[in-house]
Amino acid sequence: MIFTPRTPRIIAARKLQKRRDRDKAGQFLAEGPQAVRSALAAGVVLELFGTPEALNRYGDLAMEAPVVSPVDDEAIAALTETVQPQGLVAVCEQIDVPLAEALAKEPRLVAVAVEIRDPGNAGTILRTADAAGAGTVIFAGDAVDPYNGKCVRASAGSLFNVDVVRAPLTIVDELRDYGLQVLATTGTGETDLDSVELGKPTAWLFGSEAHGLGPELLKAADARVRVPIYGGAESLNLAAAAAVCLYASARAQRSVSPGDPRSVSPGDHHESAV
Amino acid sequence: MIFTPRTPRIIAARKLQKRRDRDKAGQFLAEGPQAVRSALAAGVVLELFGTPEALNRYGDLAMEAPVVSPVDDEAIAALTETVQPQGLVAVCEQIDVPLAEALAKEPRLVAVAVEIRDPGNAGTILRTADAAGAGTVIFAGDAVDPYNGKCVRASAGSLFNVDVVRAPLTIVDELRDYGLQVLATTGTGETDLDSVELGKPTAWLFGSEAHGLGPELLKAADARVRVPIYGGAESLNLAAAAAVCLYASARAQRSVSPGDPRSVSPGDHHESAV
Repeated sequence: MIFTPRTPRIIAARKLQKRRDRDKAGQFLAEGPQAVRSALAAGVVLELFGTPEALNRYGDLAMEAPVVSPVDDEAIAALTETVQPQGLVAVCEQIDVPLAEALAKEPRLVAVAVEIRDPGNAGTILRTADAAGAGTVIFAGDAVDPYNGKCVRASAGSLFNVDVVRAPLTIVDELRDYGLQVLATTGTGETDLDSVELGKPTAWLFGSEAHGLGPELLKAADARVRVPIYGGAESLNLAAAAAVCLYASARAQRSVSPGDPRSVSPGDHHESAV
Repeated sequence: MIFTPRTPRIIAARKLQKRRDRDKAGQFLAEGPQAVRSALAAGVVLELFGTPEALNRYGDLAMEAPVVSPVDDEAIAALTETVQPQGLVAVCEQIDVPLAEALAKEPRLVAVAVEIRDPGNAGTILRTADAAGAGTVIFAGDAVDPYNGKCVRASAGSLFNVDVVRAPLTIVDELRDYGLQVLATTGTGETDLDSVELGKPTAWLFGSEAHGLGPELLKAADARVRVPIYGGAESLNLAAAAAVCLYASARAQRSVSPGDPRSVSPGDHHESAV
């Protein structure tokens, strides 16, 4: 049997395109082979829908999924949001964890997306934070749903690689209690990125492109950091600023003294201990 | 007289939303106060259209423009592409310069957008390159038109701050002739970003997110550089990778020996000579 858009399980899965229904079910959709592969590796796939062609082409993924259901082209089109869906959609369990659980693992690098509403920006921060080795990404305050389809796609699988946390805005004290210095990014910061001590465990706060960080968070942070602007630009966009800050931390943390209890082993090509 | 969508000058300006008409006229549109301010500073505004409210609110801009024409809300809506236009649109002269003219200024940092088709990505590269102090941004091969409305908006004024060049793909030799090392970004590069000598004058090649750089350019470059990935992500997106590479260059160039004839004066907070 091949599912159509009128098959009850497709109708139910399609509802997961809406935030309210995702919240109620505790589930979400991940589309495309890259996201499905990451979701399977994370062990959160409940059911994999695919066209017969896609299930054949990605037989390794179909083999790993607990339930596999062939669907017709119309059903795939109804479940996916991209113009050229690649024929695969997985229903996944939501995977965010409580703040305390994530921080108990003592991550050395944490990215906090503060009230970021644009799902593409939020997904890009997930991807960039994961690439830079951040173990935890926190969606703070009235931020976009991390399970929004566009956010999942922009994260390119990284949603499944990091600890995702949904938290209120009042998290600075708790971050600090776990030994993290809290750095607020802002174009008007009193500290230049190049003069911050970045070898320490760090949580970076990134505000929305439209409004930046609010005064309470700016005040609560240990320092307000600006990325230096060398040319005529007024600022960087959110994704670029996050990439520069997170990679500056990643690099500095890999060149700290091995005596640091949380130090990371330097890779082959990275700077060794100072 | 207030211009309406049926006024001939509005009809003519509206055509500039199409690439063919932009190419023919050698003109383009810049919308919103930030872009208009940068365009005026660059001396390339031919005519400023604005609603009476916007012309009143941004009186300083209206004062500087060579020709100012009040328009009605419908005319602004017809000329702009954003949901909430801020009431200002400038007709500008195209500003790109020949490759040789840009390179004759001996820029120390050059960004090359190779066959990048997405106008948002191209505009972000312009903005990030400008912020990192790159004096020249080259659109190489079959890239998006730098004067595409979405590219202009994403550049946030940086289109007017740097030397923009449109060039064919075969530019590596010419870049090298002007003393620039040519670095190709690729996830499979043989060299880690942290082990490249970045203090030298550098041109970075960035390929499209979909296809990366082609084999000829990869081969022609002096080195193929990968941004290290510390977590589970497969790669960075284009804007993030460009930000990390360009800022790594900016930082290294500000910490080179002052004996270098092209060295940049270190800013207050930057690392001084090694």
